[in-house]
Amino acid sequence: MTEDKVINFLQQEFLSIDGIGDDAAIFAENYVISKDLLIEDVHFRRKYVDSKSLAYKALHVNLSDIAAMGASATYVMLGIAIPKNCDQYIDDFLRAFAQECKMNDVVLIGGDTTASADKLFISITIIGKTNNPKRRNTARIGDVISVVGNLGYAHIGLQAFEKQLPDFDDFKESFLKPRAALKEGLWLASKVSAMMDISDGLLVDLKKLCKASSLSGIINIDNLKATENFLNACKALALDPLSVQLVGGEDYGLLVTIEEDLYEELASDFLTNFCYPLKKIGKIIAGNAEEVIFDRHFELKLKIFSHFGELN
Amino acid sequence: MTEDKVINFLQQEFLSIDGIGDDAAIFAENYVISKDLLIEDVHFRRKYVDSKSLAYKALHVNLSDIAAMGASATYVMLGIAIPKNCDQYIDDFLRAFAQECKMNDVVLIGGDTTASADKLFISITIIGKTNNPKRRNTARIGDVISVVGNLGYAHIGLQAFEKQLPDFDDFKESFLKPRAALKEGLWLASKVSAMMDISDGLLVDLKKLCKASSLSGIINIDNLKATENFLNACKALALDPLSVQLVGGEDYGLLVTIEEDLYEELASDFLTNFCYPLKKIGKIIAGNAEEVIFDRHFELKLKIFSHFGELN
Repeated sequence: MTEDKVINFLQQEFLSIDGIGDDAAIFAENYVISKDLLIEDVHFRRKYVDSKSLAYKALHVNLSDIAAMGASATYVMLGIAIPKNCDQYIDDFLRAFAQECKMNDVVLIGGDTTASADKLFISITIIGKTNNPKRRNTARIGDVISVVGNLGYAHIGLQAFEKQLPDFDDFKESFLKPRAALKEGLWLASKVSAMMDISDGLLVDLKKLCKASSLSGIINIDNLKATENFLNACKALALDPLSVQLVGGEDYGLLVTIEEDLYEELASDFLTNFCYPLKKIGKIIAGNAEEVIFDRHFELKLKIFSHFGELN
Repeated sequence: MTEDKVINFLQQEFLSIDGIGDDAAIFAENYVISKDLLIEDVHFRRKYVDSKSLAYKALHVNLSDIAAMGASATYVMLGIAIPKNCDQYIDDFLRAFAQECKMNDVVLIGGDTTASADKLFISITIIGKTNNPKRRNTARIGDVISVVGNLGYAHIGLQAFEKQLPDFDDFKESFLKPRAALKEGLWLASKVSAMMDISDGLLVDLKKLCKASSLSGIINIDNLKATENFLNACKALALDPLSVQLVGGEDYGLLVTIEEDLYEELASDFLTNFCYPLKKIGKIIAGNAEEVIFDRHFELKLKIFSHFGELN
């Protein structure tokens, strides 16, 4: 049983639903809705993910879906199944979650609370509003493929945690507290041809975008420039930097496609507005749906990202 | 950490939300939304809940929240965390879930699928539509308290399963496949003063309704007439029938309050329409919020309902 298998089955069953492959579903005209689960010992371990970080991350991975639709987040529902003996953790989680909702102008409108046999289970449903939902099936041939945010940072952080290594603070922070690119998503919505968030790693997510758009993509390997800091971290962990950038998951940046003629001005405006650059990493090309190729020979030295036990 | 504590904390934090105590939250003018978790070994055990029943129940406990708002169910999202070695169970679950959605004109618009360390977790978000959401805070003094559906049947079924007893088929079916009273909820919405579903047992849920309406309720003990079949089952299980009717959970009927003058005609119309009677069980009275009293001395011989490990 794989995630793809489940999704494919449900898509077959509910063919009428146009938006089922997007980060969020579009409904009631101006609303988008998304749901993300966070499961203990699949997506996080309590021994190194403190309750405040978990609250931050639980909200932001959901906000990221709203960002990817170019929408404003409005409402959230919190489902939580609580194992025994973690009252303080849950207490802190709830406080931090409520605070982070307020910081992002999101109002909690309901949820469900129950016991759990042993693992902490968090299920969040988030609702956003937009007149112009941005989808992933609208990329066009010749569009520049561009990325908002860092690639592979969360993966390095996760590896450092799993190997119980000290230091790697920036990377650990990227894993613990990925910031949803809400403002960027809103700003980009009217300017890009397609958009989605990068939760499963660039390569997997770009394949999804290409498949949805019935096109292919080519990645310019040398455009994946890494910082000195990133290269050093990869070296310390004996990881191939390019592979980590391509398949490391949970960064929660944005993947966008932009009409080529508009790219330079848009990238310049983005830098002015957000004080960090949009990264040009490739191009949408004609070809078999779902195919993503590289512009030079390159051997992937990491398995496609999965959480600890993500289905794949 | 109790469910009440979690809810109270979040209500304090999000005071602006008027509808947070209802079965579903009201949003985007005409929409209501609700979320319910079903956790393995808290709400169900795989050894006696077959996958089709689980799919039915997972949808109907959510539909019941929509019914309680007097709304029509429109969309659903399915979150599922899948442990290893249960592919066939999940496959059957998904087929049955899709079928049951279609039977109820509910369209699946998204969700999340992930692995789980050991337990099966199901999280459903359901959306309904109504121009006239029915709430639980609108009961008035003198209103008749009335119940749609059986009381205590699911509890008997659960006990029979837990004790591995043969027979008790009707009761087991009530536990496995509670039918959401969607048509009844829609019909009642324009006629009753307040409505909610009965998921935690009559006594607990009536207290919630009274608290929300800042009133009290009196239950006429002798109105809780039980069928011969029910009395026999209670006898076989050494359970007090009245206690089971008052605190047995998971029946997913409806609890409504009705203006006294309207009651007789409404009850007669209900019987004509649905071929089973509305039950008159008490009256809303002035008095301290949250108090529910009985019209004669009566000793409760069962603990307030909790699932196997429900927080309370």
